[in-house]
Amino acid sequence: MNFQARYDRYLDVFERGLQAFCGDMRYEPPVLTESMRYSLLSGGKRVRPVLFFAALDLFGLPYPERLPLAIALECIHTYSLIHDDLPAMDNDDFRRGRPSNHKRFGEGNAILAGDALLSLAFDLLLRESKEDPRALEAAIELSRAAGAEGMIAGQSADLLYTANETCGERELSFVYVHKTGKLIAAPLCMAAAIAGREKEQMRAFGEELGTLFQLTDDILDMKGESAKMGKTLGKDEKERKLTCVGVYGLRASEELADACAARCLLALKDISGDVGFLSDFVSLVRNRNH
Amino acid sequence: MNFQARYDRYLDVFERGLQAFCGDMRYEPPVLTESMRYSLLSGGKRVRPVLFFAALDLFGLPYPERLPLAIALECIHTYSLIHDDLPAMDNDDFRRGRPSNHKRFGEGNAILAGDALLSLAFDLLLRESKEDPRALEAAIELSRAAGAEGMIAGQSADLLYTANETCGERELSFVYVHKTGKLIAAPLCMAAAIAGREKEQMRAFGEELGTLFQLTDDILDMKGESAKMGKTLGKDEKERKLTCVGVYGLRASEELADACAARCLLALKDISGDVGFLSDFVSLVRNRNH
Repeated sequence: MNFQARYDRYLDVFERGLQAFCGDMRYEPPVLTESMRYSLLSGGKRVRPVLFFAALDLFGLPYPERLPLAIALECIHTYSLIHDDLPAMDNDDFRRGRPSNHKRFGEGNAILAGDALLSLAFDLLLRESKEDPRALEAAIELSRAAGAEGMIAGQSADLLYTANETCGERELSFVYVHKTGKLIAAPLCMAAAIAGREKEQMRAFGEELGTLFQLTDDILDMKGESAKMGKTLGKDEKERKLTCVGVYGLRASEELADACAARCLLALKDISGDVGFLSDFVSLVRNRNH
Repeated sequence: MNFQARYDRYLDVFERGLQAFCGDMRYEPPVLTESMRYSLLSGGKRVRPVLFFAALDLFGLPYPERLPLAIALECIHTYSLIHDDLPAMDNDDFRRGRPSNHKRFGEGNAILAGDALLSLAFDLLLRESKEDPRALEAAIELSRAAGAEGMIAGQSADLLYTANETCGERELSFVYVHKTGKLIAAPLCMAAAIAGREKEQMRAFGEELGTLFQLTDDILDMKGESAKMGKTLGKDEKERKLTCVGVYGLRASEELADACAARCLLALKDISGDVGFLSDFVSLVRNRNH
């Protein structure tokens, strides 16, 4: 089966499961359920659940039965986007072509929707852990990746460095690895924890892959900004943001992305089994144009 | 040992443990650690950890060894206060006589400090669960109490009902039980889960006690407001807030608080063992003047 067919299969299992899960949510008051659903069901590439399923598959484990853990991953990713979009953070009015959560439901409800999704993720993790001690190992992986040692450290650094022009390579790398890398590595480490397989190798690969995501994001943003430069000025906030393009320039950033993609592929050599999907995934991230 | 001496003993074990725990925190960037510590170490009555220790004590279990779960409880309570104080929520500039977290560190950092404390709580719960399956039962109790079925539902309702004047008894009761009751009941249910004892009886008592907290809070707020009326006008936000005093008037609210305290004491009859501390706790809450 080729890459796209496998991606679609993982995605299909996840989307059906998530739809059913969201359909069963009945929190009061209804606006709480609506605001959680709105962001959970706003599409997106579902990168983290897909990587989780792919890694379980690679380790020879039946992945559909781990759906609750995949939903937990997406809940945490979604909460981080809702809070990140708030005016006090990145101040984004749109997300995936629709009004961001706070534009649709108001800031207070958006803060609570994020809090609720984070809580829901851990509730899923705890309930799965009751059924299976290996799920508890996976839950601890996700917990570390999402918290103050992981993603939140990256968001905090991103906020701090945005307004500080003395930042360079070290700061940029910290943001990339923490803000994005940790939660891209998490599904891979979770699968390895469940399988009792190469967890640290998966982590090394995942953090590189996360860095590649950020490098290519920054490059694509800059190309988008450049394209728009003729007609509109970028927001002040965007201007002050620490990016690889700002630190290294566009051409060197492209080279860094190539080198990062090469390191991803090298890291895969430490993992036994059919890593074809993950290898193709690296190429997809490097060569995407949106 | 009298009530105050027992309270102080529980408090002392908790405060020393929390101080040591906070002293060991080393998250990067430093502002993340500072903002988490600032709110965690801002004092307060530590009601939830004290109730947790007291309930463990009542069930004949050594409570100091459950410190991590007590810290998890306080982390969740603290995160809820930080997010509640934000301009988009209750918009409070002060908390326990000091600037609220967002006034001290800015809104973005305050959102992240709250997110980090919620994540930290679950990290503690998961790690304890690895050591002891009974801790996992306790963790699931806390998770349900804190999430969209519990406290967040109460915060969401509080936000919704604030701006809606058609709300009355039913809405008020929903806010009281969810916003406050669930997280007051949680430590009692957690202790019961660990001990394998009367969990549902503890929940019934705890939710009444939480309601009593809210009733007396609203009454004290109104008396404070009234006392201040001569010199300053209450904020618009406060005026529109759904409270028992607004719904029933001050005199009837006092009677409701008395009736609620009586129900608390009645609920305690379903729990075997020395409930003297919990009984005195009810009187303390009913008769406090701050």
